[in-house]
Parts: sequence; C-alpha cells; structure tokens
Amino acid sequence: MDIADWRKRIDELDQKLVELLNQRAQCAVEIGRLKRNTNLPVYEPDRERIILENVCRLNRGPLSDADLKRVYERMIDVMRTIQKLDMQPQAKAAGEGTEFDVEVND
Amino acid sequence: MDIADWRKRIDELDQKLVELLNQRAQCAVEIGRLKRNTNLPVYEPDRERIILENVCRLNRGPLSDADLKRVYERMIDVMRTIQKLDMQPQAKAAGEGTEFDVEVND
Repeated sequence: MDIADWRKRIDELDQKLVELLNQRAQCAVEIGRLKRNTNLPVYEPDRERIILENVCRLNRGPLSDADLKRVYERMIDVMRTIQKLDMQPQAKAAGEGTEFDVEVND
Repeated sequence: MDIADWRKRIDELDQKLVELLNQRAQCAVEIGRLKRNTNLPVYEPDRERIILENVCRLNRGPLSDADLKRVYERMIDVMRTIQKLDMQPQAKAAGEGTEFDVEVND
C-alpha cells in the first residue's frame, strides 16, 4: 500500500469515527436530559475516571494509554460542553435566577 | 432508557472508538514509514485541512463542526506525535547528526 492507499483508509475510518462520535454525543445529551428531569445527582466525579479506565483496559495499541487518554480528555470535555448547553435553556426557563454553572459529565 | 442504559451504550461505543482510533494510528505510523523510505515530501500542510473538511462534510450532529474539529485537532496532534516517535530512532540510526524535528502529518 502506498501513502494514497493509507490515506484512503484513514478517510474511511474517519467516516465511522464521525458517526460514532455523534452517537456518543447523543448519549451524553440524553443523559443530561435525564439528569435534569430526575433527582439523580448531576455531577458524578467518578464517571470520567471509569471511562478512562475502561478505554485503557480496551487499548491494544499502537496508541499508548497516555495517547488515548489525551484524545478522550478532549472528547469528554467537548461532550460535557454540549450537554451543559443542551441543559442550559430549560434550566433558565425554569426560572433559576443564578448563572447556570453546575458541573455535568456523562 | 435510564442513565445506566445510556452509559452502557457509551461504553459499547467506546469499545468501537478505541479500536478505530488505534486502526487510524496504525495508518499514521505506516504513512510515516513510507515517508521515511521514499522521496515523497514529509510535511504536507494541506492534509490536515483536508481531513477537517472531510469530517465536517460527514458531520450530521449533534456535534457541531466546531466540536468535531476540537476532537480531531487533538486526535491529529496525538497521531502526529506517535508518527514522529516511530520515525525518530531510524532517522538517528541513519547517522543524522542533528536533532530530529521535521514536521510530519498523516
């Protein structure tokens, strides 16, 4: 395989990655909605640790665990932000007078 | 579906994501090796732009293009680093006297 072949393979992988990243983001949004509508705690600090432990356990390389964690830290940060933005309008609509700044994670 | 169900779904997606991220990393390593062994240019500045354009064109949400780019920028950065590290030992073994600091991307 030459460089063009490997890049074609990367483009094919990206097609799947974009789809899976969006499916993952949709899950985070749904979790945000459930957190808003129930009495379950919004912030669960252990969840991010568990996610990172899971992905490192699944990791077979060539990415090192540290590489994978760097990617996941960004991914979790982005998804936390969209979950927060999705929760924000209704929190404000419910008449909360204070800035919406609760911590959320998936 | 309750929060536990959505988290189970996230864990299943993460299993596929870790596999795909590693396959993508392997492609980047292979491209690095080909670059080292051929006269093809090592640094092609347009490639990162093309990758980001591709993934934005594929994007159907709920992630925004900006969200997706943030994830991909980290991903590309990590893969560029492992490509560089993979190329480094042999470049040194070939007797190059200077610090290995060429720019590489996939």
